[in-house]
Amino acid sequence: MQCDFDIIATRSVQADIEIGLVIHDLLMALGIERFKIRLNNRKILGGLLEKLQLAEKATPVLRALDKLGKIGAEAVAREMAETAGTSEEQSSAVLKLAEMTGDHEEIFGQLRALLEGSPSGVEGLAELEAVLVGMQAGGVPRERIALDVSIARGLDYYTGTIYETFLDDLPGIGSICSGGRYDNLAGLYTKQELPGVGASLGLDRLTAALEELDLLEKIQTPAPVLIPLFDKQLANNYLAMAAAIRRAGIGVEVYPEAKKLGQQLKYADRRGFRFALIQGSREAETHECQVKDLAGGESETVSTEPSFEPLIEYLRAKLV
Amino acid sequence: MQCDFDIIATRSVQADIEIGLVIHDLLMALGIERFKIRLNNRKILGGLLEKLQLAEKATPVLRALDKLGKIGAEAVAREMAETAGTSEEQSSAVLKLAEMTGDHEEIFGQLRALLEGSPSGVEGLAELEAVLVGMQAGGVPRERIALDVSIARGLDYYTGTIYETFLDDLPGIGSICSGGRYDNLAGLYTKQELPGVGASLGLDRLTAALEELDLLEKIQTPAPVLIPLFDKQLANNYLAMAAAIRRAGIGVEVYPEAKKLGQQLKYADRRGFRFALIQGSREAETHECQVKDLAGGESETVSTEPSFEPLIEYLRAKLV
Repeated sequence: MQCDFDIIATRSVQADIEIGLVIHDLLMALGIERFKIRLNNRKILGGLLEKLQLAEKATPVLRALDKLGKIGAEAVAREMAETAGTSEEQSSAVLKLAEMTGDHEEIFGQLRALLEGSPSGVEGLAELEAVLVGMQAGGVPRERIALDVSIARGLDYYTGTIYETFLDDLPGIGSICSGGRYDNLAGLYTKQELPGVGASLGLDRLTAALEELDLLEKIQTPAPVLIPLFDKQLANNYLAMAAAIRRAGIGVEVYPEAKKLGQQLKYADRRGFRFALIQGSREAETHECQVKDLAGGESETVSTEPSFEPLIEYLRAKLV
Repeated sequence: MQCDFDIIATRSVQADIEIGLVIHDLLMALGIERFKIRLNNRKILGGLLEKLQLAEKATPVLRALDKLGKIGAEAVAREMAETAGTSEEQSSAVLKLAEMTGDHEEIFGQLRALLEGSPSGVEGLAELEAVLVGMQAGGVPRERIALDVSIARGLDYYTGTIYETFLDDLPGIGSICSGGRYDNLAGLYTKQELPGVGASLGLDRLTAALEELDLLEKIQTPAPVLIPLFDKQLANNYLAMAAAIRRAGIGVEVYPEAKKLGQQLKYADRRGFRFALIQGSREAETHECQVKDLAGGESETVSTEPSFEPLIEYLRAKLV
């Protein structure tokens, strides 16, 4: 399951910044602090390919580039030359982009030089810088943002800004929140132009991560009251009692089996119930029940008439 | 998506009652009042087939029975005779069960006669009666419970009580909450016996139903404050202002495009924002911003220093 958030019908880079802020504030609100949002812009790689006159050969070039981590730069250049007919100059420029390292300023400096003369590349660079600066203006610490202009995969879908989010302590699970700008997306379905930018939080993956990081609260039974099934013949009495107490907003569990009372009370102790409501045939006749305080051990006899009201009042007072 | 609730590790009919109560209280909590929980017990049909010595031919018998609504009783009897070799007596007994009508008492009377001599049938009947009575003891009005001993489909999975839930106003969407007892379920996976009873709320179907019944609250933008993108050069100022106000728990939207202020304020009016925070270069220099009350129309100049605190205080006081 994914939780999506999108801003549609605007091409403004302000919307790209806002989506970055949502990713950040979302993770912070979930109690995660050690993560990085990786930013990229589709136009940077696109602009470079255009400038190198490789735009038409983008598919084989990117396919080769994808193997960089596995086979190394030399083999990638060789494959590019074979499948896309790239010159040495072309493949080395593409590899330079993919292997770019350094801090934000250094990377921007290298990109500016590499993309000079490519209008769309320069535009992508300006957008990337605006998102980087804007997210910081909006309160994201610099160290939670990483530039990653090398991402080559899965970019077909996006036309501008791209987001990925990795947990510092669990990099292996992959990006838990990814997205980007998709200015042409609606074009697949309608003639109306519908630009947008958005991202998806992968809920299953995130839940697994929160569990792993011990950030999920453990929940015990929230019901404070147990009604033991003390006398099977009175089961329907117990159900009516439980219904009335629940309607008053107090949680009740009715024990499902007519085991020995001692066993049922042991269960109550173990699960942390506060009170057990015990009613035998004698109490049922006199419209009463015993309220046993499970921590203290003492019992009091409380009336159940009219409509369980005295019993509810008693529990309310004790449970404050 | 489904929301499941189960009680496991007990064979007690009290657990079957409890699951029925959860179904009822769940729908009530969602604001639905006009619905029926249809109850059945797998052992009733099973016991009857056993008594008729048709247990081994259950599959063709049930397949024929499934067509009752479409092809009528006569054709069903014919198909049973052909595919399962049933006598007229056998098929008429099965059809009698499927066509049983009347109020709860009448149905129980007919079932008692029909199942006489079948231990498992009689057991199923006793369980069905216990669930029916127990649910009423637990607060479910009689008219929200329906007996439906004819359900033949999808019973392979269940071994006892079966629940289906239909909305009175939208019967066409089918059961929105179904389940049952599955005493042998864990047997598929482990040798350990793990009896259980439970049901699933079909969330997609339910959401569609709530929408259809106009029971879903419409949610408007919850942010009371809009910051128009009045001066593009100040965009990062606006982001910092928004971040500070949001940290104080007040919702803010930053308009994404530098349109004419009048257009941005029209948007604010239309969407029901309470305040617009307008800052031009002059106000940015003096660390101030104009707070425009969108309902009244009046503006006040408020300081943004230190750390937007006077502005946040001002908004807090106005938004109480």
